[in-house]
Amino acid sequence: MIGPNRVIVRGHGREYYVRAGEGKLSTDLGMIDLAAVAELESGDTILTHLEKPFTVLVPRPTDFFSHGKRTGAPMMPKDIGMVIAYTGMSARDRVLDAGTGSGIATIFFGGVAKSVVTCEAREEFSRIAEGNIRDAGLTNVECRACDVLAVTDGPFDVVHLDMMIEPQHVEHAHGLLRTGGYFATYTPFLEQTFCVMDTARRLFGEECVQTFECMERELTRSARGTRPSTKVSHTGYLTIARKI
Amino acid sequence: MIGPNRVIVRGHGREYYVRAGEGKLSTDLGMIDLAAVAELESGDTILTHLEKPFTVLVPRPTDFFSHGKRTGAPMMPKDIGMVIAYTGMSARDRVLDAGTGSGIATIFFGGVAKSVVTCEAREEFSRIAEGNIRDAGLTNVECRACDVLAVTDGPFDVVHLDMMIEPQHVEHAHGLLRTGGYFATYTPFLEQTFCVMDTARRLFGEECVQTFECMERELTRSARGTRPSTKVSHTGYLTIARKI
Amino acid sequence: MIGPNRVIVRGHGREYYVRAGEGKLSTDLGMIDLAAVAELESGDTILTHLEKPFTVLVPRPTDFFSHGKRTGAPMMPKDIGMVIAYTGMSARDRVLDAGTGSGIATIFFGGVAKSVVTCEAREEFSRIAEGNIRDAGLTNVECRACDVLAVTDGPFDVVHLDMMIEPQHVEHAHGLLRTGGYFATYTPFLEQTFCVMDTARRLFGEECVQTFECMERELTRSARGTRPSTKVSHTGYLTIARKI
Amino acid sequence: MIGPNRVIVRGHGREYYVRAGEGKLSTDLGMIDLAAVAELESGDTILTHLEKPFTVLVPRPTDFFSHGKRTGAPMMPKDIGMVIAYTGMSARDRVLDAGTGSGIATIFFGGVAKSVVTCEAREEFSRIAEGNIRDAGLTNVECRACDVLAVTDGPFDVVHLDMMIEPQHVEHAHGLLRTGGYFATYTPFLEQTFCVMDTARRLFGEECVQTFECMERELTRSARGTRPSTKVSHTGYLTIARKI
Repeated sequence: MIGPNRVIVRGHGREYYVRAGEGKLSTDLGMIDLAAVAELESGDTILTHLEKPFTVLVPRPTDFFSHGKRTGAPMMPKDIGMVIAYTGMSARDRVLDAGTGSGIATIFFGGVAKSVVTCEAREEFSRIAEGNIRDAGLTNVECRACDVLAVTDGPFDVVHLDMMIEPQHVEHAHGLLRTGGYFATYTPFLEQTFCVMDTARRLFGEECVQTFECMERELTRSARGTRPSTKVSHTGYLTIARKI
Repeated sequence: MIGPNRVIVRGHGREYYVRAGEGKLSTDLGMIDLAAVAELESGDTILTHLEKPFTVLVPRPTDFFSHGKRTGAPMMPKDIGMVIAYTGMSARDRVLDAGTGSGIATIFFGGVAKSVVTCEAREEFSRIAEGNIRDAGLTNVECRACDVLAVTDGPFDVVHLDMMIEPQHVEHAHGLLRTGGYFATYTPFLEQTFCVMDTARRLFGEECVQTFECMERELTRSARGTRPSTKVSHTGYLTIARKI
Repeated sequence: MIGPNRVIVRGHGREYYVRAGEGKLSTDLGMIDLAAVAELESGDTILTHLEKPFTVLVPRPTDFFSHGKRTGAPMMPKDIGMVIAYTGMSARDRVLDAGTGSGIATIFFGGVAKSVVTCEAREEFSRIAEGNIRDAGLTNVECRACDVLAVTDGPFDVVHLDMMIEPQHVEHAHGLLRTGGYFATYTPFLEQTFCVMDTARRLFGEECVQTFECMERELTRSARGTRPSTKVSHTGYLTIARKI
Repeated sequence: MIGPNRVIVRGHGREYYVRAGEGKLSTDLGMIDLAAVAELESGDTILTHLEKPFTVLVPRPTDFFSHGKRTGAPMMPKDIGMVIAYTGMSARDRVLDAGTGSGIATIFFGGVAKSVVTCEAREEFSRIAEGNIRDAGLTNVECRACDVLAVTDGPFDVVHLDMMIEPQHVEHAHGLLRTGGYFATYTPFLEQTFCVMDTARRLFGEECVQTFECMERELTRSARGTRPSTKVSHTGYLTIARKI
């Protein structure tokens, strides 16, 4: 049963992100009773008062990327996926995620890890992110409105930084990591990337640090033919370091 | 305590992938007692009989990419990460992974999902993959030595195919998916990609299907300067479709 | 002396593309006498009636890309450059350029080759392109308002097609080429590219055909830092074949 | 008539780069009389003494990329093409090319421009390049064995530097350029690229400088299917600046 939680209502080319439980959702094909939605299971169909069918879905992490309240540009899914894969993040891990932002990456990490501590220095951002994370139904994520340097209760299996990064942050992350654990950070500009590479190589050892650029293109296909989109998602450089 | 399981022994620029519990590991800096290793915790140090220190680590999914027994080229981490992120795979999900191969992607998925069914038509490959998966200590993964068309116990939240794919496989995957769930497949060649796009658009609806190419380059940095590697990991095209 | 020809007038962040010889150019910093401009050399400075200095320049091919009259999207400079380099186009060559379009690529080719025949099936396009080409001061370019299949006065050293291409066009181009010469074509869609590759391999031999994709990104640098632009110029696939 | 010059002899999957005029070319399908070759036209067929046909070709610039004597890695055709297109190099131009190297780019530029001065600080390299350039039959190229800073007989329409570059070289190039002309340089490493960008922006003005990265991939097509090659030609960053 969905209960009084966030739900996606989809149908007829429209998608609504609402809270089940009380009130009405007004679509251009009629009203939907949100109390009735709360009684359904994810994937069920509900009819508007005009008898038009809509599907109700418990949101997945990808839905929060589309619908979560934003306080800035969230990490792109491709970049979240790179962090998960290159750190080998799994259900055994305690993860530190600094620079919560809107909390979208945190929601993906929270769905994977045993537990996540996420910190965000801007209090209002932290509060908004906490709303998104609560809407995702995650109970293994702790939101802290503080600077990452104030986090001292390591060790963590993965430390991910998505923030304006300076050498001291890499050093602090290194100190918080369990042996065998991974540090990961995305840096949009080359100058910062160089700084992260140099600091990480000094701390983790040169052979334990790699930096990647990930370029993603959509393949478009229509009656005219198939070709790559000219838009390429470049968001920066991912540096991964393992503490051995 | 590590116990009689797979362990990574690292030190002095070497890395060994062995089984703790009994016998000796012979390094060029002396012998390590593997029974003693089984008593340690991940991250502990052990000395060889020549008193050289090595670190022992419980392997993470990334270690199985490096050390797991292979029956072919496994999926690249960047591609595994794209599948996890674009499907929003999480601890709530029941996942079907067809084309187990060496089981490396399965190990990543098993660390993320509630449970994974993985099937591989070639019996010997399935047996080898099962060894890797057992070595990863995963108890939520079921290996089946069968064709994906023989899997009929849906629904699944995510169906991932990594195999020679034909329209019938996309159709079968569609039938096994829960509403709101995701289909994902990597196709190395454009011809197959076109076939997958066309079949998926017919079944899932055009607006629910996206195909991506992900190009990853390493950034190399040395005394001479910093520049992208000329090697680019292209492995193919990822098609993602959501069942609504 | 510039004479009664096209000229670029630049200064104070503005750039004008006008005809020297008679009349006035009205800038927001005063009037410039175009008869006086015709008496100058490229690179000279002229003052407006308000004594503001502007530079006058005889346009280069790059200026026609910016200012030439367009009948559609012209080829990108990167693609024009690829054609010149992969065919080794030089002052010894007689070039056939089919699909004149706005004539921008023709202007680049005309600046390189001994002579160029360019044909465009749409008469109005051909007339407009001819205007651009005349403005570029090229006397070695012949514009024909006809289909490429109507061009029979080979041989050519380079045949370049920028048009909706079918196997018969590749065959016709092959017949018009001198031994040792090159065929070049850009195809925006993969389906056409496959068709061109297959036809060209059959006619020229597999080892004499190559197809490239060229992705170009600008590097942006500001006070915030340096990073690649997220816009990537993809215009298609360049197929090059040599007749041996 | 080919005369006593370099010639390409092709046939039966082999390609020879020899000098017509005297002696014999020994192929595995028989001997070819090089005096007879000198009497032919480019594209003609000659028979070995075993009556096997070969084609003789006057080499094009692309042939010197394949066969010219090398003193290091020459510029890639894609990069040569980018320089030609972004500078709008044409038969009206006087070009300075510094860092002759093996002279391959010089041969392409010599085929396009009115005249080229090319300088190379290493005397032996300059002599070898001069051999290649003479073999290409170019009479409009002057080879100088000197540092680019010793070139003072401007103005040039295009100055291209392919060498270890420092701010003084950009400054010197700027001083040698005609108004309206272009500066172009390839830098393999990001650090040098930043240095070139900063110096060029100061001298030419920010809006007159652009830096590009060009990534080129071959599309491979076989019975298995079509896909991009995983090898990508990255050679560096092209900076283009116009003097206004």
